Amino acid sequence: VDTPSLTVDLDAVERNISRTQGYCDEHSLAFHPHAKTHKSAAIARLQLDAGAAGLACQTVEEAEALAGTGVADLTVCLPALGTRAERLARLARVARITSVLDSTVALDGLSRAAQAQEVKIDILVECDTGGGRAGVQHPSQAAELAAALGAAAGLNFAGLLTHPAPPGAAEWLAEAKRTIEAAGTPVDRVSVGGTPTATKAHEIEVATELRAGTYVFGDRACVHDGSVPLEDCAVRVLATVVSRPAENRAIIDAGSKSLTSDPAFGLDDGVFGAIDQLPGARLVALSEEHGIVELDGDGPGPGVGERLSVLPNHVCPAVNLHDRMVVHRGGDLVATWPVLARRR
Amino acid sequence: VDTPSLTVDLDAVERNISRTQGYCDEHSLAFHPHAKTHKSAAIARLQLDAGAAGLACQTVEEAEALAGTGVADLTVCLPALGTRAERLARLARVARITSVLDSTVALDGLSRAAQAQEVKIDILVECDTGGGRAGVQHPSQAAELAAALGAAAGLNFAGLLTHPAPPGAAEWLAEAKRTIEAAGTPVDRVSVGGTPTATKAHEIEVATELRAGTYVFGDRACVHDGSVPLEDCAVRVLATVVSRPAENRAIIDAGSKSLTSDPAFGLDDGVFGAIDQLPGARLVALSEEHGIVELDGDGPGPGVGERLSVLPNHVCPAVNLHDRMVVHRGGDLVATWPVLARRR
Repeated sequence: VDTPSLTVDLDAVERNISRTQGYCDEHSLAFHPHAKTHKSAAIARLQLDAGAAGLACQTVEEAEALAGTGVADLTVCLPALGTRAERLARLARVARITSVLDSTVALDGLSRAAQAQEVKIDILVECDTGGGRAGVQHPSQAAELAAALGAAAGLNFAGLLTHPAPPGAAEWLAEAKRTIEAAGTPVDRVSVGGTPTATKAHEIEVATELRAGTYVFGDRACVHDGSVPLEDCAVRVLATVVSRPAENRAIIDAGSKSLTSDPAFGLDDGVFGAIDQLPGARLVALSEEHGIVELDGDGPGPGVGERLSVLPNHVCPAVNLHDRMVVHRGGDLVATWPVLARRR
Repeated sequence: VDTPSLTVDLDAVERNISRTQGYCDEHSLAFHPHAKTHKSAAIARLQLDAGAAGLACQTVEEAEALAGTGVADLTVCLPALGTRAERLARLARVARITSVLDSTVALDGLSRAAQAQEVKIDILVECDTGGGRAGVQHPSQAAELAAALGAAAGLNFAGLLTHPAPPGAAEWLAEAKRTIEAAGTPVDRVSVGGTPTATKAHEIEVATELRAGTYVFGDRACVHDGSVPLEDCAVRVLATVVSRPAENRAIIDAGSKSLTSDPAFGLDDGVFGAIDQLPGARLVALSEEHGIVELDGDGPGPGVGERLSVLPNHVCPAVNLHDRMVVHRGGDLVATWPVLARRR
């Protein structure tokens, strides 16, 4: 195994899948694991075999890649515009497709594309319940869009979707559901998302399903927010010490092109990953192919040529930087899986 | 052209190549453009045709990819350890290879690998002249390593290398050169690097060659430090507005997986790229596939479906996220070039 390489502990992956699927089963939530994290057909299969209802994707391209491996239920969480609408509609001929909208602007294009392919696409109205990203801003706007969808050929209003689910999301979504149902339209699905709040999804009374991605691998941010314990963090970037220029400094061959320069969300401590073998050391800076490690002076530190395993701050963009994952059980190599939908 | 896509203005690329090659010619510096930025055979060819002496690479894998397209002179700026030493030695059978060392630890392996392939590998001693990354810490250590290299079969001490070249680098390198030459060993090459200080390379009296990568494309950091003017910045990430959730907010489909979350080095203003069409707007946050744009309220702002072009903060990791570059002259598509050595 050359370095830098992405390694995946399959035992930890199975524990994470089992724990989160168990939570969803306990609370009667349909689980739609988010494929943006792993972009892998093999891990998607493990998630479905454990009881997932379908897979969530961020892009049409991810959905195309997974549909090509036989995944039959895909939710694409970005509005499909232009040629993406046509690709999504074609995909709906081979899989059950759900997508999102937060305005009527993209509605006509998607409706035309669905009609051209003679398919129905389920639409969840994306709701900004306080996260400050995309989504309608008020429950009344969700109701207006639901009504517009009811009149659109080829599209089917299926419910509501939010990400993340901050405090207040429960009331927001409940009000939207009440308003829409008062107008005679059932709200079958209410999809909430995000690993940090995943195990609080059942506190959102109207939620019927959960989307989460990072939970399957864990990362430094997950350890910090408590969503994945360190012993279940499955991914490491394997690196080699290529230089020991000074007593308190080691240089590894993993930088921003294999770890990403993302901070650990919520922690933001200026550190770019945790090194298993050097708990007191700090990965204080990244160039593209260099990681600069500040040693704590406790012992001689690692020698040139020594291998270190680095827990990334944010595992999703880190995985996206690699073509394949080296899969092991307890350190024994069991497979090399492609990052199928990388850069899609 | 789907979004997000990486676009390259070929006219601007040619201006950047011509300007920087002209600078090197004027000051009799051999130019070794750094391929880590573009990872492209086509752009490497433009650089060589303009007069570059060879290409610099960060990894053995980049060098392998470029050697496979006929590049005959390659400098690999990371020490080659383990199987990398063997690959580098094999590469030296098809191209002139220079590599770096900053200690004797990796010397034996590389020497053995070179002997096994019956090649000579030129070695530059990497010097930490104040940048705080890899490299020997003192001119006397450079001299010791030069002496050790003189006695190593298969390796040839060729000179010194530093990155970046902070104030003080000129004296540091001059002292190292004096010490080594006083012991009877000529120092043929002194290689300095980095786009921000590229046009000051001639102020380092002993410098014989320049390595620079980012200069060929430019980015937001280059505009800030003055190394590439905005009108010569060649790369944009083309994005689509996928949501206009609020009056002062637009969401684009380019996030950290197409732009990187790197700050603009030296600027660090919390902005993740500059939008050509919206000079007053601020790209204030990135998710993986979402960019959150804060609008300035000057006019209605862009509509859903509108396309925007984003100048990245740091172009090298941005290019590495894409499989291909859409090449144009004045907006007219002229080619689609693979990012040949992406994730290598």
